[in-house]
Amino acid sequence: MPTQAGPMPTQTALRIPAPQTLARARALAEPALRAAVATLHPLPARMAAFSFGWCEADGTPSPSPGGKGVRQAFALLGAEAVGAPLGTAVQAAVAVELVHTFSLVHDDIMDGDERRRHRPATWKAYGTGPAVLTGDALFALAVRTVAEAGGEHAGRAVAHLADCLGELVRGQADDLLFENRPWTGRGAVGIPEYEAMAARKTGALLGCALSLGPVLAGAAPLQTGALAEAGRRLGTAFQIVDDLLGIWGDPQTTGKPVHGDLLRRKKTLPVLAAVALDDGATARELARLLGPDTPPDAAAADRAAGLVEAAGGREFALEEAHRHAAAAHDCLHGSGLAEGAVGELVALSAHLLQRQL
Amino acid sequence: MPTQAGPMPTQTALRIPAPQTLARARALAEPALRAAVATLHPLPARMAAFSFGWCEADGTPSPSPGGKGVRQAFALLGAEAVGAPLGTAVQAAVAVELVHTFSLVHDDIMDGDERRRHRPATWKAYGTGPAVLTGDALFALAVRTVAEAGGEHAGRAVAHLADCLGELVRGQADDLLFENRPWTGRGAVGIPEYEAMAARKTGALLGCALSLGPVLAGAAPLQTGALAEAGRRLGTAFQIVDDLLGIWGDPQTTGKPVHGDLLRRKKTLPVLAAVALDDGATARELARLLGPDTPPDAAAADRAAGLVEAAGGREFALEEAHRHAAAAHDCLHGSGLAEGAVGELVALSAHLLQRQL
Repeated sequence: MPTQAGPMPTQTALRIPAPQTLARARALAEPALRAAVATLHPLPARMAAFSFGWCEADGTPSPSPGGKGVRQAFALLGAEAVGAPLGTAVQAAVAVELVHTFSLVHDDIMDGDERRRHRPATWKAYGTGPAVLTGDALFALAVRTVAEAGGEHAGRAVAHLADCLGELVRGQADDLLFENRPWTGRGAVGIPEYEAMAARKTGALLGCALSLGPVLAGAAPLQTGALAEAGRRLGTAFQIVDDLLGIWGDPQTTGKPVHGDLLRRKKTLPVLAAVALDDGATARELARLLGPDTPPDAAAADRAAGLVEAAGGREFALEEAHRHAAAAHDCLHGSGLAEGAVGELVALSAHLLQRQL
Repeated sequence: MPTQAGPMPTQTALRIPAPQTLARARALAEPALRAAVATLHPLPARMAAFSFGWCEADGTPSPSPGGKGVRQAFALLGAEAVGAPLGTAVQAAVAVELVHTFSLVHDDIMDGDERRRHRPATWKAYGTGPAVLTGDALFALAVRTVAEAGGEHAGRAVAHLADCLGELVRGQADDLLFENRPWTGRGAVGIPEYEAMAARKTGALLGCALSLGPVLAGAAPLQTGALAEAGRRLGTAFQIVDDLLGIWGDPQTTGKPVHGDLLRRKKTLPVLAAVALDDGATARELARLLGPDTPPDAAAADRAAGLVEAAGGREFALEEAHRHAAAAHDCLHGSGLAEGAVGELVALSAHLLQRQL
C-alpha cells in the first residue's frame, strides 16, 4: 500500500519557479514549432494552428496561449540533464509537442470529446475527416523532425519515438476496451491494469519527452533509461491527478462539468479503487449507479462521488499519484544527471501536481 | 500534348508474368507483415487484419486475399534492382504495405467511402474512433519497422518515409480542397494542379515503395532518385486509371456504382480535361450537371459521362496515363539498375494498367 501522501519534496526544487521554467521552454521551442507547422500544406497547417491554440477556427490569432507546454519543458530539461546541445533539445521539444497535439486531436475523435481547453475540439471545429488529416500531418511531421535532427543517432531516436507512439496506441486501445468492461465481478478492470494503461496513455509520451533529446545526443542508455522511466512515472501521476480532477475538479478551471467522468462512466482510478477497497455493498451500489441501467444524471453522479470518497478511493488515488512521483524522483536522483536540470524538473512536477489538486 | 497512347511497351517485360510477380511478393512479404501486425495491441491488431482482408469483421479468417499487394511487389523489385539484401527488401515491403493500409483506413473516413474491396470500410465495420486508432497503429508500426530495419541508414530511410507520409497528407489535403472548388472560371482546378495532387496522393507511396529498400541498403542517390521518380510517375498513371474506372469501370469489378465518381462530383482528370479542352458549351453544361444545383442522379451522371467522352476527356486521360508510364520506364532504363528486376517491374506495371482498362 502506498504511504507517501503529503506535499511533494520541493526543497531542491524551488530554485527556479515552475512558471519561469514553462515560459523559458515556450520561448525556446515555440518559434521552432511554428516554423515546423508552417511547412505543412495550408489546410492542415491552419487546423494544426487551431489545435495548438495559436488561432481561432477562422484563422484569427488567438489571445490564449494554448496548453501549458509541459512536454516541451520536459524535453528541454531532459536534454539539459545530459548536457545535450540546445539545438537537439529544441528539436526534441518540437517533436514531442507535435506528437502530443496529434494524440489530442485523434483522441478527442475517439472519445467523442467536444471541448478541449475551453474551445471546440478540432473535429467539432472542422469536421471529423479534416481532424483525422490534421493528426496524420502532425504525426508525419514529428517523425520527420526526429529523423532530420538525429544525425548519427537518428535510427535509435526514431525507434525510440516509434516505441512511444506504439505505447500511446496501446494505452488508447486499453482505454477504449475498458469502456465495455464491468465494474465488478468477472472481467472487471483491476488497479494494476488501470495503471498499466495510464503509464502507456500518458506516461509514454512524458517518458519520451524526457529521453528523446538525450537519445538524439547519444547519451548513455543508463541515463536515457532513467529519464524515460521518470517521465513514465510522472505521466502516470499526472493521469491519476486528471482522474481526480475529472470528478472533483473545479469546472471553472477544468472547463468540464462537475463529476464529468462519473457522468461518462469512465473507468478512473478513484472509482476502481473504491470498488476494489470495499468489494461489498459500496461496490455493488457504485456498479449500479455507474452501470447501463441507471440514467447518467447529476443525482447519481453526486451519490457516486460521495461513495467513492467514503470508500477511500479519492485518498488511494492521491497516494498513488504521490508514490509514482516519488519513484520518478528516485530515478532522476540516481543516474548522474545534471543537478540544476533535475531540480527544475522536480519543481515543475511538484507545481503541476500541487496546483492541479 | 501527349501522343503516346496505345499498348504499353512490354517487349522486355513479359519474361515473368505479372501474376507470378505478385504471388512471389505475397509469399515473401505477407508472413513478415502478419508477424509485424501481431505485435500490435489485440484490438487494433484485429481491426488491422480486417483492413488487410485477412479476416472478416468478427475475426473469422477471410477466403479473399485482400488487395493485390502491388506495393509490396514494387518494394521487393525496387530492392532487387539495386541488389539489396532480401531481408531489407522484405522490411521495406512490410513498411509500405502498412503505410498503404493506414492511408486507406483514414482516407475512407475522410472521403466518407463506406465500401472497400467489396466489403465495409474499416470505419463502417468498427466505428470511426476505432478506425482512427487502427490507422495510427499501422502508421506507428511502419515507422518502427523502418527504424529497426535501417541499421546505419536508418535516419535517411525514416526521413525518406516521413517525406512520403508528408506528401500523402498534402495530396489528401489538396483532394479535400478540390471538392469545394468550381469546375469552371476563377478558382477552377487546372490539369497541372490535378496531376500534382495525384502524384502526391498516389505517386508518393509507390515512389517510396520502389526506393525505400534501396535507401535502407545504402544505394546511390542517383538510383534511389530514379526509382522514386519512376514510382511517382507510375502512381500518377494508376491514379488516372482509377479515375477512368471510377466513371467507366465495370461495377462487378470495381465494386462501385456505374458513373460513381460523377455521382460524387469528384474532380477527376477525364472531367477536368473535358472542361479544359472545350471551354464552351460543353464545359458550361458539365459544370451545371455536376454542380450544386443539379441533384446527383443517374440521368445527370449518364449525360455527363457522354459529354466527357465526346469532348475528349476520356482519351486525354488515357494518353496522360501512358505518358506518365512511359516517363517511368525512361527513369528505370537509364540508371544502371538490374535488368531482370526492371523488366519484371515494367511487365507488372503494364499488366496493372492494361488489365484495369
